[in-house]
Amino acid sequence: MANAKQVSGKLEWRINVPDGTSNVLLPESDRLVNKAWLWLKGLLCGPILIIWRFLYKAWNLGVAEPKKAIHGVKLGLCLLIVSCFYYMRPLYDGVGGNAMWAVMTVVVVFESTVGATLCKCFNRAIGTFLAGSLALGVQSIAEKSGKTFQPIIIGISVFVLASVATFSRFIPSVKTRFDYGAMIFILTFSLVTVSGYRVEKLFEMASQRLSTIAIGTSLCIFITMVFCPIWAGSGLHDLIVRNLEKLADSLDGCVGEYFKDDKTKLGNEEDPSKRMQGYKCVLNSKATEEVMANLAKWEPAHGRFNFRHPWKQYPKIGTSMRKCAYCIEALNSCINSEIQAPDCLKKHLSDVCMLLSTNSSEVLKELVITMKTLTKSSKIDLLIGEMNLAVQKLQDSLNSLPDSFIGPTVSTLQAPNDANIETITKTAIPSLIEVFPLASLVYLLIEIAARTEGIADAVDQLAGLAEFKLAMDENSKQKKPTSNSTSDIQHHETMETLPKYILHEYFSR
Amino acid sequence: MANAKQVSGKLEWRINVPDGTSNVLLPESDRLVNKAWLWLKGLLCGPILIIWRFLYKAWNLGVAEPKKAIHGVKLGLCLLIVSCFYYMRPLYDGVGGNAMWAVMTVVVVFESTVGATLCKCFNRAIGTFLAGSLALGVQSIAEKSGKTFQPIIIGISVFVLASVATFSRFIPSVKTRFDYGAMIFILTFSLVTVSGYRVEKLFEMASQRLSTIAIGTSLCIFITMVFCPIWAGSGLHDLIVRNLEKLADSLDGCVGEYFKDDKTKLGNEEDPSKRMQGYKCVLNSKATEEVMANLAKWEPAHGRFNFRHPWKQYPKIGTSMRKCAYCIEALNSCINSEIQAPDCLKKHLSDVCMLLSTNSSEVLKELVITMKTLTKSSKIDLLIGEMNLAVQKLQDSLNSLPDSFIGPTVSTLQAPNDANIETITKTAIPSLIEVFPLASLVYLLIEIAARTEGIADAVDQLAGLAEFKLAMDENSKQKKPTSNSTSDIQHHETMETLPKYILHEYFSR
Repeated sequence: MANAKQVSGKLEWRINVPDGTSNVLLPESDRLVNKAWLWLKGLLCGPILIIWRFLYKAWNLGVAEPKKAIHGVKLGLCLLIVSCFYYMRPLYDGVGGNAMWAVMTVVVVFESTVGATLCKCFNRAIGTFLAGSLALGVQSIAEKSGKTFQPIIIGISVFVLASVATFSRFIPSVKTRFDYGAMIFILTFSLVTVSGYRVEKLFEMASQRLSTIAIGTSLCIFITMVFCPIWAGSGLHDLIVRNLEKLADSLDGCVGEYFKDDKTKLGNEEDPSKRMQGYKCVLNSKATEEVMANLAKWEPAHGRFNFRHPWKQYPKIGTSMRKCAYCIEALNSCINSEIQAPDCLKKHLSDVCMLLSTNSSEVLKELVITMKTLTKSSKIDLLIGEMNLAVQKLQDSLNSLPDSFIGPTVSTLQAPNDANIETITKTAIPSLIEVFPLASLVYLLIEIAARTEGIADAVDQLAGLAEFKLAMDENSKQKKPTSNSTSDIQHHETMETLPKYILHEYFSR
Repeated sequence: MANAKQVSGKLEWRINVPDGTSNVLLPESDRLVNKAWLWLKGLLCGPILIIWRFLYKAWNLGVAEPKKAIHGVKLGLCLLIVSCFYYMRPLYDGVGGNAMWAVMTVVVVFESTVGATLCKCFNRAIGTFLAGSLALGVQSIAEKSGKTFQPIIIGISVFVLASVATFSRFIPSVKTRFDYGAMIFILTFSLVTVSGYRVEKLFEMASQRLSTIAIGTSLCIFITMVFCPIWAGSGLHDLIVRNLEKLADSLDGCVGEYFKDDKTKLGNEEDPSKRMQGYKCVLNSKATEEVMANLAKWEPAHGRFNFRHPWKQYPKIGTSMRKCAYCIEALNSCINSEIQAPDCLKKHLSDVCMLLSTNSSEVLKELVITMKTLTKSSKIDLLIGEMNLAVQKLQDSLNSLPDSFIGPTVSTLQAPNDANIETITKTAIPSLIEVFPLASLVYLLIEIAARTEGIADAVDQLAGLAEFKLAMDENSKQKKPTSNSTSDIQHHETMETLPKYILHEYFSR
C-alpha cells in the first residue's frame, strides 16, 4: 500500500516536472555548453570566492581587533630576534646547535595575553628543570646497573612517569595551572632519558637545553610585556564591565519594548532588538571568564591592578550576572510571545514596571561606574534602596489592582438597585486569566531586582577584597564618612532580607 | 570625626580582647612551646595533608572515570614503543638521531579522544609538509641571491609568514580546525629555514623529520584507535543523552516538589534537590559540546555512528536544551521562593500542572530513547500531541478558574439578602495578586512545553540527517507505515503552529 502510494507520488512528480519546465527547454548542444560553462565558472570562482571571503573575514577581524594583528607582528619580531642566534657567529658558538630549542620555545610559548605567556614560560621552565634533573638521576642509576638492565630501567621509568603525569593532567587543580608543565615534563623526561642512552655528553646537552629555553622564555616575556602588552586581567575586567552594560541595556530594552505602546520615551532611536540581545553574551561567557581569571593570576601589577588583585572574584560576579541573564531570557520570551495582556492592566502597571526596570538598570549602570573607576560608589546604597522602593511600589499597585477593578462592583453592591448587577460584575472584573501573561513579567521583574542585588553584592565583595577607595563625590564627602561602616552593615542586612521579606509578607497576605 | 570614632573603636577592641581571653592565659614559656609545636605541626602536616588530599582526589577521579587512567597507560605504552627506535640498533640506524622527533610527536599529539588525536596528527603532518616544502623553496631562492642577501631574505620570510600564520589562528574557521596546524607551520618553517643556513644536508634533515613524524603519528593513531578507544563522538552523544535525562528529571523534580503538599506521588524517595539541580549541567555545557562536535567530525565510523554522522546537529540540540533549561532555572526560582500561592488555587491547578510537566518530561524521555536507540520514535507525535492537550487542559482549567472562584459570589449576588454581601465577596474572590506567583509558574510551564517541542524538532532534524530508522514497535507496525511522510509533515505543522496559536487565541480573548 505505502509503496504503491510512494510510486504514484513519484510518477505524478515526473509528469509534472516536464510540464513546468517545457517553456525553457533548449537544444541539446546549447544545454551542454551551458552546463560546461557553469561547471567551469563554479570550478574557477568557487575557490576564488572562498579565498576572497576568508581574506575579507580576516581583514574585518584585524580592523575590529587590531590587538590580534599586533600579536602576530610581535611573534614575528620575537622569532626574528631568536633567529639572530643562528645568523651571528659569536652567538651561535655560544649556544651551539641547540639554538633550535630557543626557536621552538618562542613558537610554542608565545601567547596573545601576558598571563598565558607567563603561565607557559613558568610551566616550561619548571617542567624542563624537574624532568631534566629527574632524568639525569634515573640515567645515572640505570648506568650503574649494567648494560642489560639499563634499557629496562629507563623503559619502565618512562612508562610509569609518562602514565602518571598524563593522568595528572585530568585532575582539575593541575589542569587549570600546570597542564602545559605536565606535558613538558613528559617530553623532556623521555627525550633526555631516551637520548641519554646514545648521546654521551648528556649533562652538557641538558644544560644547553635549559639555557636556550631560558633565552627563549625571557625574550618572549620581554616582548610580550613591553610592546603593546595584552593583559588577560584587563581583558577580564573589561569583559565584565561590558557585560554589565549589556545587561542594563537588555533590561531597559526589553521592558521599554513591551510598554512601548504607552508612548514611554524609549530614548535614542537605535535598533532596540540589537540592544535587547545583549544578555545573550552574558549567558555564554562562563568559559571565557574562567580561563581569563586563571591567566590573570599569573600577571604582575599592571595598569590600575595590583599583583594580588582578587581575580577569583570576577567569575563569581559573572555567575551572578548569568543568574540575572537567565531571568532576562525568560522575560524576553514573555515579551516576544504574541500574548498581550489587556490594555487596561498594562496601562495600570506600565509606570511602576518601567520604574522598577529603570531602577534595576540604574543599579547595574552604577556598578559599571564602580568597576570602571575602581572606586566604591557612594550612591549604590541609595540606588538599591530606590530599587527596593520600586519593588514595593509595584506591589502596592498590585494591591490597588483589585480595588480599581473590583472596587466599582463592590460599591455597586453596597447600593444594589436592580437585576443588572450581574452584567456589571462581568465587565468590570477582568477574568483572572487575563492577568497571567503580565503576572509572569511582574514576577520576573521582581526576581531580576533581587538578582541585581546579587550582582551588587558580588561587586561589593570585590570592592572589599581589592580595597577600592570610596568615590570622591560631593555628596559622599558630606554625608558618608561619619558612619560608613555601620551603614555598610545595615545595607548588607537590607540587601539580604528586604526583597524576600517584602515578597513574603506581600504574597502571603 | 570619623578618625576619632575609628580609633575609639580600636581601643574598645583592645580592651575587650584581654578581658575575654584572660581565663585561658598560660605562662609565657608554655605558650611559646605550644606555639612552636603548632607551627611545627602545621609545617609537617600541611604539605602531607595537601598531598594526601591531592592523591585522594586523583584516586577518586581514576575510579570515577577509569578511561582517564587508561589514557595515561596508553600514552606510556606509546612512548615505550617509540623509545625502541632508540634502543634497537637497526631501527636507530634507519632514522638516525632524528628519532627524537618521533618521541616529541607522540607526547605532543597523543590526546585522550580519537578525534583530537586524528585532528592533531593531520594538522601536524600537513603543517610540517607545507612549511617544510615552502622553507626549502625559500632556502633555495635565498642561496641563489648571494651571501649578503641570504639572511635578509630568510629573516623577512620568517617574520612575514610567522606574523600572518599567527594572526590566522584568531580567525574562527581556522581556530576550530587548524589551530595546531598553523602553530606547527610556523615552528617547522622557522626551524628549517633558520637551521638551513647552517646545516648543509637540509633536504635530508627535512625528509628524516617527515619520516619520524610519520612514525610517531601512525603509532599514535594505531594505539588510540585499537586499545580502549575514547571517541569524542560517542562522548558527545552520551553527553546530550545524559543532559536530556537531567532536564526531564529536573522538570519532574521541580514541579513535583512544588505540589508535594498535595500528596502527589513523588515516586522513589531519593533526595529530590539533587535531581532538581540537573538542569545546571545543561546550562554550562555549551563549550564542551562545541569542542566535542568539532573533534567528532575527524573521527571515522565507530560503534553505531557512520563517518558522516551529522555531529553539527548536536550543538543545535544542545542550544535548544539550554533554552529549556533557562526556563527551568526561572521555574526553580519560582518554586524556591518563599512565596506560596493560596492553597485553593494551588489545589485547583495542581493536577493540570503536574499533568503538563509529566507530559513534557515524557516527551524528553522519549527523546532520550530515540537518541539511545538511534531510531525514530513512533510515539513521539502522540506524546507531543498529549503535551499540547495538557497545555490546552491547563488553559481550560484557567478558564474555569474565575467561575469556580467568582461564581459563588455572583450567585450570592443574584439573591442578595443583607449587608454582609461585602464580606462574602472579599473572602470568595482571591485578590488578583494572590494569583501572581502561580501565574508565573503556569506561564513558565507552558513556555517549557513550547521549548520541549523545540528540542523534539532539533532531535527530529538529527534523525532526518542521520537517517534514523523507524523504531520496530508493535503499534508502529500496524498504524504508522501507511502514511508516514504525510503525518510527519502534519506533525511539523502542528509543532510549529499549535502552541503559539493556542496561547494567542487563549490570551487575546
